[in-house]
Amino acid sequence: MNLIILFDEDFITSSRVHITDRRREHVYSVHKAQVGDQLTVGKLNGLLGRGEVIEIDKHKLILDVALSEKPPIALPLTLVLALPRPNMLKRSLQTCSTMGVKRIVLLNSQRVEKSFWQSPQLQDENIRSHFLLGLEQAKDTVLPELIIENNFVHFINHRLAELTKTSRAFVAHPHSSQACPHDVSEQTTLIIGPEGGFLQKEIEQLETAGCTGIHIGKRILRVETAIPVLLSKLFY
Amino acid sequence: MNLIILFDEDFITSSRVHITDRRREHVYSVHKAQVGDQLTVGKLNGLLGRGEVIEIDKHKLILDVALSEKPPIALPLTLVLALPRPNMLKRSLQTCSTMGVKRIVLLNSQRVEKSFWQSPQLQDENIRSHFLLGLEQAKDTVLPELIIENNFVHFINHRLAELTKTSRAFVAHPHSSQACPHDVSEQTTLIIGPEGGFLQKEIEQLETAGCTGIHIGKRILRVETAIPVLLSKLFY
Repeated sequence: MNLIILFDEDFITSSRVHITDRRREHVYSVHKAQVGDQLTVGKLNGLLGRGEVIEIDKHKLILDVALSEKPPIALPLTLVLALPRPNMLKRSLQTCSTMGVKRIVLLNSQRVEKSFWQSPQLQDENIRSHFLLGLEQAKDTVLPELIIENNFVHFINHRLAELTKTSRAFVAHPHSSQACPHDVSEQTTLIIGPEGGFLQKEIEQLETAGCTGIHIGKRILRVETAIPVLLSKLFY
Repeated sequence: MNLIILFDEDFITSSRVHITDRRREHVYSVHKAQVGDQLTVGKLNGLLGRGEVIEIDKHKLILDVALSEKPPIALPLTLVLALPRPNMLKRSLQTCSTMGVKRIVLLNSQRVEKSFWQSPQLQDENIRSHFLLGLEQAKDTVLPELIIENNFVHFINHRLAELTKTSRAFVAHPHSSQACPHDVSEQTTLIIGPEGGFLQKEIEQLETAGCTGIHIGKRILRVETAIPVLLSKLFY
């Protein structure tokens, strides 16, 4: 936890927060913070700054906070992921949040197992918790947005049609002839397929809709590895 | 499992293998392969090719194999990781193996918890199993080498002194002034610190020994994310 994220309900005055949950536990047991210590804090979807420990014990943490820094810059990206298996989804969402992705679309495709759509990992409070962990890691405060698209054809005809009007769209695919570009600064849509890849037919539909196929070498990567590799190449 | 890795003991003739373990189970239950199917196979530390299913059932898998392709190119890299916590180590080793790292040094440093050195994940058979999973993912056959360096000063004075003679050495550190280079093709040593980072004193020791500090932006990444991000930027 490199950042303590503060929520509206933590504020007892405009500059004082009262915290009782796992954040208190972490600051108390892991950071072993004491009265007078300065901690890095940030308000959800707002500014970052310092919080001075006023009181800390087994029940509560009280901080006086001063917030003035902007959160780090977000990636100019809409990331579309064919829904990965639940444990991979969990880590992938956390990684996306850490790396500065602010808009994620979870997409259905032929090779997505139907049972994945029933996973508890897709419940709002779990999604939010993965995103918050990612933000705490990166010292960012801006919660990503998650969109569910469980109809591939609907995605192609509606959302993708909109996205290709305002961004360059890529689909990562091991057999593409074009290598992944680097140092991209313009608005981008990146689509990553399921385990086993998109069907050839799906790739053709995506390409017809305006996506360029790109590859990152011969090695087939798991989704949770492909995400940081592609984002690093494109934007870092 | 994008590749079935074959071991010496699988071969009953020079071109026929007999497999009974989890590889048979995977081919039988997940691939649902049938007699006559062609599977991608590769001999450990050797060539890749095709294996035709001759027999498959709940007890055995017999393949006729023809091997002629070289494994994918390895990264020109020695990756030095301050020993991560066990579950992160496990995933990191798998990622390294998938991405083509062939030499990994696990290093002690002040912020590495002593208990991590007692983890069962460090046992030879577990290390080997993480590496094999990574190779199966990437369709590679060349097993990485793992070196344990549990004395930081000894590492600096001996191994690092050798490495800096034959490679460019970098230490990834969020506060470095130099951005991570890209499209590197020469022999490289990359050092990644522990959770919480190297101590300032350790960074100075590494720099004095010939390492250049590099950063990959303001966001603090977990080790398992920093590895693919850095490798992608440097080599992909």
